[in-house]
Amino acid sequence: MTNKTSPLAPASTPSLPAIAGVKLATAESNIRYKNRPDLLLATMDEGTQAAGVFTTSLTAAAPVAWCKHILNSGKARAMVVNAGNANAFTGRKGMEAVEYIAQAASANLHCSPEHVYVASTGVIGEPLAYDKIAHAMPNLTSSLNGDAWNQAARSIMTTDTFMKVATVTVKIGDTPVTINGFAKGSGMIAPNMATLLAFVFTDAHIPAPILQEMLAQANTVSFNCITVDGDTSTNDTLLAFATCKAKHVPISSAEDKHIAPFQKALADLLTDLAIQVVKDGEGAQKLITIAVEDAESDKAAYTIAMTIANSPLVKTAIAGEDANWGRIVGAVGRAGENIQQDKITVSIGGITVAKDGARVPDYDETPVNAHMKGQDIHIHVDLGMGKGAATVYTCDLTHGYIDINGSYRS
Amino acid sequence: MTNKTSPLAPASTPSLPAIAGVKLATAESNIRYKNRPDLLLATMDEGTQAAGVFTTSLTAAAPVAWCKHILNSGKARAMVVNAGNANAFTGRKGMEAVEYIAQAASANLHCSPEHVYVASTGVIGEPLAYDKIAHAMPNLTSSLNGDAWNQAARSIMTTDTFMKVATVTVKIGDTPVTINGFAKGSGMIAPNMATLLAFVFTDAHIPAPILQEMLAQANTVSFNCITVDGDTSTNDTLLAFATCKAKHVPISSAEDKHIAPFQKALADLLTDLAIQVVKDGEGAQKLITIAVEDAESDKAAYTIAMTIANSPLVKTAIAGEDANWGRIVGAVGRAGENIQQDKITVSIGGITVAKDGARVPDYDETPVNAHMKGQDIHIHVDLGMGKGAATVYTCDLTHGYIDINGSYRS
Repeated sequence: MTNKTSPLAPASTPSLPAIAGVKLATAESNIRYKNRPDLLLATMDEGTQAAGVFTTSLTAAAPVAWCKHILNSGKARAMVVNAGNANAFTGRKGMEAVEYIAQAASANLHCSPEHVYVASTGVIGEPLAYDKIAHAMPNLTSSLNGDAWNQAARSIMTTDTFMKVATVTVKIGDTPVTINGFAKGSGMIAPNMATLLAFVFTDAHIPAPILQEMLAQANTVSFNCITVDGDTSTNDTLLAFATCKAKHVPISSAEDKHIAPFQKALADLLTDLAIQVVKDGEGAQKLITIAVEDAESDKAAYTIAMTIANSPLVKTAIAGEDANWGRIVGAVGRAGENIQQDKITVSIGGITVAKDGARVPDYDETPVNAHMKGQDIHIHVDLGMGKGAATVYTCDLTHGYIDINGSYRS
Repeated sequence: MTNKTSPLAPASTPSLPAIAGVKLATAESNIRYKNRPDLLLATMDEGTQAAGVFTTSLTAAAPVAWCKHILNSGKARAMVVNAGNANAFTGRKGMEAVEYIAQAASANLHCSPEHVYVASTGVIGEPLAYDKIAHAMPNLTSSLNGDAWNQAARSIMTTDTFMKVATVTVKIGDTPVTINGFAKGSGMIAPNMATLLAFVFTDAHIPAPILQEMLAQANTVSFNCITVDGDTSTNDTLLAFATCKAKHVPISSAEDKHIAPFQKALADLLTDLAIQVVKDGEGAQKLITIAVEDAESDKAAYTIAMTIANSPLVKTAIAGEDANWGRIVGAVGRAGENIQQDKITVSIGGITVAKDGARVPDYDETPVNAHMKGQDIHIHVDLGMGKGAATVYTCDLTHGYIDINGSYRS
């Protein structure tokens, strides 16, 4: 936890406004970390609608199984999050821990335990000392307030070096509504649905099934488009809560024209958080944006972009500020999607380096090398096959990654 | 090229005997490296049968396309290999280079250019100065001899820190035959067929179609079971040449009982070379053997084993000598194969650490930590699903990998 702040951290942090119907509190559980809040309680007023997307891992953690189960009702009254212990691969005891925590929170809040969402992040395989979480519940309940967004974002951090928050105000019809979000994540990032933990709160009035559809859509273009190390987590959880306090035109479907600006704002907010996660990728020195165009399909473009993004050879070359485009081509070739070598065009920083199956004639590496020295690296691959496109985000692979992950538990 | 020898390098190197019908010579091409042989010519007597397996990459290099093409005849008279330039993604000029080299060799050897195999390894995307290779041909031809195996193995090295050779003598019927092999490779290792470059020579009398079948089988359990960084190369090439000089019982099929010992010896020899490649994995400090058993199928076991082997989190944990088995479980869960969390058993160094979906009761990490400090790390995962099994080999992910690949071209 003593890692230096990422050089890619945002220069400033937005201030998150209160959201009608949402209160937050944090506390120290003393389960793993010393002298820092690592426990979050969020409460939502009655009538709050919930949606969520989760890791596709088959070794998903107990809290993921719990959230999926209770999400059937579409209702939410509270959320409890702990950092430092993932409560993953903890067997029957893991689910007992989740139920105990939900029970403890519901007793203090006088709601059903099945309306209490639970999320965990941290080390896999260690039993969770849930009694310590239950023990903190009265204190958490008594300190709830509507402004503790930064404290909330900070409490869920593990190897993160900066907190990740975002906010946006958008109109539904003529009524302004707010979306606040925060996230954590910096290693084990290859969301196959969401990233580690991300939470979104809004005062908008959106029924749970519609919220679910919108969240899944927004996730596809945000958290599902980032990778740090290709390791999908056991605990990936993205939850959205709509308190329905705003008085706007009723929303009857995700295709309702009144909700379109909200859908776009939600996708942009999630993309903002997702890119913050990449910028805090363990050891990251550079943000890498990889755009693949003219693929046979969007799916093919996505697979190829992710293969480039997960290539250790591409990521180390960029760490070394080496415009080693041959490694990009190598990744394109092994991605398993249909391509034709002589139709590929590769650009770095807007400069075409390879075309028609070979390096461009009279290639001058000077401007490309200058681009490689920056913090924002842009790779563009045109496949000349069709109309499929995808943009994904990753970071470089540096000594910092090895330092952090060779000693995370110790 | 100034990298220190891998700590996993074999303590001694076997001496490779001559093989009737095979001659070798090396030379300096001065294309990329200074003051070291980087060019290999091997010649084989008339009647030599050939087989090969190649990268599945769709950005395969020109020499790969050439070898696949000429392999149709099943005949071989020579092989030319250069190190330092992969002649990959070099467009039409890349194939012109290969044809020029084959032509130059054939003119000196008085054979058809279509019996000259060509292989290249090194940087992708740079035009190959084939005139320098052609220029060296007369000198190579005049210095051919039957004993230059070590020189041959050394000449094809790039980031390799030690040469990789193996030899075995085995009987076909009552007649002893010899198999010699050498290989190179240390980065961009995730063979989806073979590794970078590996060559096998034997005096056995085996018709090309049977040799091909045997080679493909042996490759499946050797080179296809290793990974360093998950990056499949554009140039992966495994070639086998049988000079047919040995006088043994005729072999009529790959299932012939007389050839079974040879098949096993070939698989063992390729596995030996493949493990040497892993031991020279860029930055490797530890050899990791991952055995997955009781999977739904061999294919499922292989996919799961390779997912563990390619997990940066598993590999960095092992570099840090941390028995972070939760990361192994995480990789099992995201591999995409059917598993049941509560049936998984994970052992490290022969000690069971997790069972029935959770850490074993009263887990004592002491002996596991002792195992992690060694150079040979053994991970065993039992899935309790069926009878599928696979064993794969990889190395840890260390600062050395970042050092080498952040500066390879410069």
